[in-house]
Amino acid sequence: MIDNQKLALTLRSFAAERDWDQFHTPKNLATSISVEAAELLEIFQWSRGQRSWAEVADPATRSRVENELADILLYVIRFADKAEMDLQAIAERKIASNAEKYPADRFRGSDRKYDE
Amino acid sequence: MIDNQKLALTLRSFAAERDWDQFHTPKNLATSISVEAAELLEIFQWSRGQRSWAEVADPATRSRVENELADILLYVIRFADKAEMDLQAIAERKIASNAEKYPADRFRGSDRKYDE
Amino acid sequence: MIDNQKLALTLRSFAAERDWDQFHTPKNLATSISVEAAELLEIFQWSRGQRSWAEVADPATRSRVENELADILLYVIRFADKAEMDLQAIAERKIASNAEKYPADRFRGSDRKYDE
Amino acid sequence: MIDNQKLALTLRSFAAERDWDQFHTPKNLATSISVEAAELLEIFQWSRGQRSWAEVADPATRSRVENELADILLYVIRFADKAEMDLQAIAERKIASNAEKYPADRFRGSDRKYDE
Repeated sequence: MIDNQKLALTLRSFAAERDWDQFHTPKNLATSISVEAAELLEIFQWSRGQRSWAEVADPATRSRVENELADILLYVIRFADKAEMDLQAIAERKIASNAEKYPADRFRGSDRKYDE
Repeated sequence: MIDNQKLALTLRSFAAERDWDQFHTPKNLATSISVEAAELLEIFQWSRGQRSWAEVADPATRSRVENELADILLYVIRFADKAEMDLQAIAERKIASNAEKYPADRFRGSDRKYDE
Repeated sequence: MIDNQKLALTLRSFAAERDWDQFHTPKNLATSISVEAAELLEIFQWSRGQRSWAEVADPATRSRVENELADILLYVIRFADKAEMDLQAIAERKIASNAEKYPADRFRGSDRKYDE
Repeated sequence: MIDNQKLALTLRSFAAERDWDQFHTPKNLATSISVEAAELLEIFQWSRGQRSWAEVADPATRSRVENELADILLYVIRFADKAEMDLQAIAERKIASNAEKYPADRFRGSDRKYDE
């Protein structure tokens, strides 16, 4: 379970104590998610192939990945809190919509989605 | 609450049914998070100022934002599931580390973090 | 003038001398452009409003911006060189296509493109 | 050669005719570069390995890549024009600084830069 309500409250206090709420506009939080996503991506910038997930087991890499993943998640939670969106509900809705968009029998294996 | 275990299991089945697990390398999932983050950012590409959160109340914008936010969250959950990372734990750890890095009394208001 | 042929040749030698050509796949160079673009964006991460271009006149900011802009340009030139694309030609083509897509009389001022 | 002065002048007229100059703040143009970079990256989102450059020879892929590469280049030129930066000069400076940072004899092949 991710206790996003509790995390959102902590982030609210964090921003309030530093008077940072003024910076948390939709555009700035969307920017922050992109910036943190690129920092995660940078870890794999020069990978040439099908690196296994074992690669992420290296402690230094793992720690970097965890930090960036946490940053992205926290900004997503902060954005949803400010916008009053229910992350569990929208995640479920998105999965349902993906299931309709990509029927398993038509998109199996080396499929159009990944080949196009 | 975000039931990330349940969502992760659904994403596993989703990938298995389409034989997409082979595409879910660390680099590809990190790429996907970046691509979806940019699609969220694109919604605010030309905003010029301190747009209020009311802007996101417009139903069409709100729906786009929800879709992109859900995509980012789902890829984060999928990444953490493949890498066997506990999102709640790493989020809490990151908040604690940020609290140390940015003491409230030194970073209040128009602070160095945001000014530099 | 940007002497992209000369810059491309220098980048070729640079990669050859370090045996880095093997890393310069389409995906990796596209990743690098995204990573550098996010580093440029990070400089403006918390801007709240219509900051003037004077802001970029601050020597430290200016130097950071120049470095990131140069990185993006160099990866674009490297990508085009590997893919044998003529940057001047595709830039002119894109401008012509944008002029058709956004007729001046229909997209003046606070226009649909930026409002939607 | 890329005639960036001529392209910059065309982009100036383009913006002036549509009254879009007001939208071209440093943050918005940096955002646009990131958004277009992600659209380029999306083309290679699910690549699993060392795809050859021949892949980009496919006419539909090639055309998409050219469009996104042109968009990035045009926003870089527009940014440099607004910020009064000389792209050729900063590109040359960056290459010189990279040559110092990554001496060929220490970074050959599977080097630290790419391994770290």
